[in-house]
Amino acid sequence: MESYQKELNPNTRVLMGPGPSDAHPRVLKAMSTPLIGHLDPQFLEVMDDIKVMTQKTFQTKNHLTFVVSAPGSAGMETCLVNLLEPGDEALICVNGVFGNRMSDIVERCGAKLVRIDAPWGEAIHPDQVKEALKTCKPKIVAIVHAETSTGVLQPLEEISKLTHNAGALFVVDAVTSYCGTELKVDDWGIDAIYTGSQKCLSAPPGLSPVSFSERAVAALDNRKTKVQSWFLDLTMVKNYWAGAKRAYHHTGPVSAMFALREALRLVLEEGLENRFARHSATHELLKEGLEPLGFEFLVKEGYRLPMLNAVKLPEGLDDVATRSRLLNEYNIEVGGGLGDFAGKIWRIGLMGNSSTANHVNQLTGALKAII
Amino acid sequence: MESYQKELNPNTRVLMGPGPSDAHPRVLKAMSTPLIGHLDPQFLEVMDDIKVMTQKTFQTKNHLTFVVSAPGSAGMETCLVNLLEPGDEALICVNGVFGNRMSDIVERCGAKLVRIDAPWGEAIHPDQVKEALKTCKPKIVAIVHAETSTGVLQPLEEISKLTHNAGALFVVDAVTSYCGTELKVDDWGIDAIYTGSQKCLSAPPGLSPVSFSERAVAALDNRKTKVQSWFLDLTMVKNYWAGAKRAYHHTGPVSAMFALREALRLVLEEGLENRFARHSATHELLKEGLEPLGFEFLVKEGYRLPMLNAVKLPEGLDDVATRSRLLNEYNIEVGGGLGDFAGKIWRIGLMGNSSTANHVNQLTGALKAII
Repeated sequence: MESYQKELNPNTRVLMGPGPSDAHPRVLKAMSTPLIGHLDPQFLEVMDDIKVMTQKTFQTKNHLTFVVSAPGSAGMETCLVNLLEPGDEALICVNGVFGNRMSDIVERCGAKLVRIDAPWGEAIHPDQVKEALKTCKPKIVAIVHAETSTGVLQPLEEISKLTHNAGALFVVDAVTSYCGTELKVDDWGIDAIYTGSQKCLSAPPGLSPVSFSERAVAALDNRKTKVQSWFLDLTMVKNYWAGAKRAYHHTGPVSAMFALREALRLVLEEGLENRFARHSATHELLKEGLEPLGFEFLVKEGYRLPMLNAVKLPEGLDDVATRSRLLNEYNIEVGGGLGDFAGKIWRIGLMGNSSTANHVNQLTGALKAII
Repeated sequence: MESYQKELNPNTRVLMGPGPSDAHPRVLKAMSTPLIGHLDPQFLEVMDDIKVMTQKTFQTKNHLTFVVSAPGSAGMETCLVNLLEPGDEALICVNGVFGNRMSDIVERCGAKLVRIDAPWGEAIHPDQVKEALKTCKPKIVAIVHAETSTGVLQPLEEISKLTHNAGALFVVDAVTSYCGTELKVDDWGIDAIYTGSQKCLSAPPGLSPVSFSERAVAALDNRKTKVQSWFLDLTMVKNYWAGAKRAYHHTGPVSAMFALREALRLVLEEGLENRFARHSATHELLKEGLEPLGFEFLVKEGYRLPMLNAVKLPEGLDDVATRSRLLNEYNIEVGGGLGDFAGKIWRIGLMGNSSTANHVNQLTGALKAII
């Protein structure tokens, strides 16, 4: 019998890596609802509901708030390819994998990349941005709110002000922070933001909620060239999401949207502030459980993400062997380090439905037995 | 109570439009399986299973056979942006919406577009390609196998030979034909092909199976410039799908892939030839049921798609009002016409799980009552 002939039968995992997180049974159930058409009036209502709830969770009134029919990386690309044209300058803040990825995309847009770097594990300091803005005139300044590769929480408000004073648009990667820690799109002056469905929202991976401010929409309207991606071109996508005629663009991912709607409902039922408090509390619990076992946080206090805990391994602990034991003996997934941090840190996710005391206790219990 | 606060409760529809089609309960059930990580060894097995089954259903041995984590339109863009560089020539055959879309993407790649047009509702004649190849030297010739906007089945073999004789790569859109009518990627010399999950495969919309021949991979390897899209760049995507290390690129859409695996299993359990015969048989049934009611097929016999039936409305039948009654009174979705055909034709899908005598009888029964 070939492998594909066997029934799907994965182990039930405890998801404590950098995403996906555990989905709520209500989300899984919503996703198995029989399909309806992507232009069915009942599906357009689902899209409207999602738009309203995405606005609430982003804390924005932005009219152009919608969901890219592809994972967070495509959301990143959507923001950059729509706002940049060949020859534009873009100031990108890099302190991990995802700032690097933005830089890569900027160059693929034919834009001029100006790059600010901070060591991995540290936040970008506003003075770095201030200094850089003396010698360039960027159309956008882009930064990662929650660096999934390092566990750094980036303060945004001061850099937002510097950006606007320089006449630029402020672009933020909120893939990991969204629905897990305070994020105020309007109050913080964020002009374009993207996130992912599979982190603190606890929907399945594959969708990317995005929002554009009026200033960003004006930049879109003033483009002189076509957006280089047809699939991500918001001049068309926005007609499907918000046009009077709801014009066909591509076939919307109906089932994934059913799941997203349910995940957003769960967030609003809990309340954003309660949800943020829960993420902080489980982060504290994890800290209390892990530090006695010899784990040390990579990031200094005050800049740590509650939902993505980057911890240095205790002396002598074998990275791959231990993560394999966690997965094979306990069905617990934690993430390894990326780049220079490979083999040296773990990335422990406490995101959305995976952010509970039970998750922490399962992990610390298993580690006590293994170490 | 706001709309989003209500429980998801769409009507159970009978999907007979241009996609999505009805999903099998086994597919819906697979999709609601609790999530596992996108780099979990058990998920990598799921990806391997999907690759093997995609090869079988494409009838290819192509090593670079994989699934784009986004809908069919993104599959189209994947093929074009990876094979074309600025300045390359591309010969695009256009006889409907999707040929037009390919032309649009070609121009966004900075490639030189050479375009062959046939009237909507007719196939491209090989002589048109032969003639065009006398005055251009394209890197690719691209064509739509099953034009979803018009219901035309495009013969491919002769045009494939002309393409290869001219030293070009043969690119095929098989979004609607895949798993519903004969499609032999290797025997027909197709170098790059993309499809969608939501047509004759009857999985939820959102994924795009793709395959590249060795010749196409060589073209990819010989690129002088970076692919303009980071998200769709196969030089990286292929390492996640087929690399020795299965490197992280983006977060794979785990639930959608569970569903895709199950849908592919159902196709292979039925057998490709049986499935094609079933699609032909229900097409004949529909013809028998519709013609007495005054509907006429748009496309001449021999070029009609079995799974996407484009029919001219009987004199005096109101397009929108009748489709609304079908949807609201019978829960039956059929598609309207696009472009010049709006208001004049319907597009009736008999795809995958929606290709049954019961579907035909529901539609013809409802129409008899309405007309």
